[in-house]
Amino acid sequence: MIIGVLGPKGSYTEKAAQQWLAEKRSNECRIKCNDAQEGDLALEYCEDIQDVFSFLRAGSLDVGLVPVENSIEGSVGITLDMLLEHDVAIVGETVVAIEHCLLSKGRKEDIRIILSHPQALAQCRHFLKENFKGVELRTTGSTSHAARLATEFEEMAAIASRESAQTYGLNVLLSNIQDREHNHTRFLTIVRSESSSIYSNHIGNVYKTSIILYLDRDRPGALYEILGEFSLRKINLTRIESRPSKKKLGDYLFYIDLEGSTSDDNIKEAIYNIESKVGMLKMLGSYPASNPV
Amino acid sequence: MIIGVLGPKGSYTEKAAQQWLAEKRSNECRIKCNDAQEGDLALEYCEDIQDVFSFLRAGSLDVGLVPVENSIEGSVGITLDMLLEHDVAIVGETVVAIEHCLLSKGRKEDIRIILSHPQALAQCRHFLKENFKGVELRTTGSTSHAARLATEFEEMAAIASRESAQTYGLNVLLSNIQDREHNHTRFLTIVRSESSSIYSNHIGNVYKTSIILYLDRDRPGALYEILGEFSLRKINLTRIESRPSKKKLGDYLFYIDLEGSTSDDNIKEAIYNIESKVGMLKMLGSYPASNPV
Repeated sequence: MIIGVLGPKGSYTEKAAQQWLAEKRSNECRIKCNDAQEGDLALEYCEDIQDVFSFLRAGSLDVGLVPVENSIEGSVGITLDMLLEHDVAIVGETVVAIEHCLLSKGRKEDIRIILSHPQALAQCRHFLKENFKGVELRTTGSTSHAARLATEFEEMAAIASRESAQTYGLNVLLSNIQDREHNHTRFLTIVRSESSSIYSNHIGNVYKTSIILYLDRDRPGALYEILGEFSLRKINLTRIESRPSKKKLGDYLFYIDLEGSTSDDNIKEAIYNIESKVGMLKMLGSYPASNPV
Repeated sequence: MIIGVLGPKGSYTEKAAQQWLAEKRSNECRIKCNDAQEGDLALEYCEDIQDVFSFLRAGSLDVGLVPVENSIEGSVGITLDMLLEHDVAIVGETVVAIEHCLLSKGRKEDIRIILSHPQALAQCRHFLKENFKGVELRTTGSTSHAARLATEFEEMAAIASRESAQTYGLNVLLSNIQDREHNHTRFLTIVRSESSSIYSNHIGNVYKTSIILYLDRDRPGALYEILGEFSLRKINLTRIESRPSKKKLGDYLFYIDLEGSTSDDNIKEAIYNIESKVGMLKMLGSYPASNPV
């Protein structure tokens, strides 16, 4: 099994991949002690989130890990857009505790440039404004890529994980620098739609189901009516997120996560009833829910 | 009236401020031919969105303009967060057509660094990946700030408005480079809560009302019940957006825009009924709706 993560070595996505694998194995052993589908495991480092999706479609990856939301900065827009555009299915999720550190070869007072992924910069927005006002901010495809680049000059620092400091021989100048003490990112495990059945078993776990809806009707109560189908059947929504349809301003898609699996009768019924009421419905899959943090 | 916008000169927010003023005057003339509250007009350029909110609270601005959502990249997270944190009211909105250009002193083939606001970089994500793979991306507080910085070296380019090219003496290397042809950003006009009555009249216009809700209850149907209060009274929701509560992953606030004003009886009733059902409700104000694009 070739697993695509954000590279280079040391990214939070790599950590997510390891964690997802461990959770998956522990579940499978509990159920059937069989993880034959894994085969030889290999990590493939991708430059950015788009590449994880593209390489998956092209067949050079079997599964991919991508960040989807963070407890401070919210949704990762590019991941939501790619979930709509690409023919992929979600087969798992995992939640990683994020502790951003300021890493550099130089001293704090010499820092002129800070590099990181845009989400990490946003999670440390107040910290940066208070402590590094006027310092130049550069974006990279991942936090570990920022760490690798920060090895080049002493006036550069990266916002990345503590592990990245070790990997790239940088000093941890400051730790836990995000704007809130608790910081978690939820990652999704995705596969090509046609191979989703290999990775799902729908036995024994607490499941989540993810869908994308486009209402296609501009009238009071359209969303209300859809949510009613879930409420009627006591289906809990763990997340509802809007995203621009990109057709015009004020036109949205809804990304909804539900508790339960598409093998449950109540979910089946709700989806069946909703299908005729919406302009578009994309099933992203059912997958074992990660434990709440 | 001192109006805070993102600076330096030439930002899209400045354009939004001019457009909002023109729309406001045209409405007021239609209603009462009286814009006495304006006084002498002055623009104050702020470094970033946080500063617009802070300077407004500190009293050095009378009104502020901030971007809140874009038709390609969605919500501006920092604006949503600041609307919750600060004691401000929304008194207007305006929608600006965005045409991003690649501006530089140098030639296209010499570009090594591209600067812009993170939202503008995200709106041009595919363009950048296809045409400038490997080029370094740097973030700035505004697109016009990027344009000003790009005057320093020929190997630098900014993603900014066509007007910024003129202001800073840069060449337009490529125009309309965002990932979709149509690109619009919605801006909000904000004031200190206590001065909102000076700017609102609630006469004659089509109005919108914005609220923030925190449900504080983790049970199926909580959001459904709230939306029912609007649906029952035929109140149209123009937008519903979730944002992390920042307490823990999976815990959200909802930002809702409604058609109508708090002076309308149906809106008053709905809000009254909702107040007892939610953990927190913040009224952001009623304001004349911008014409749909």
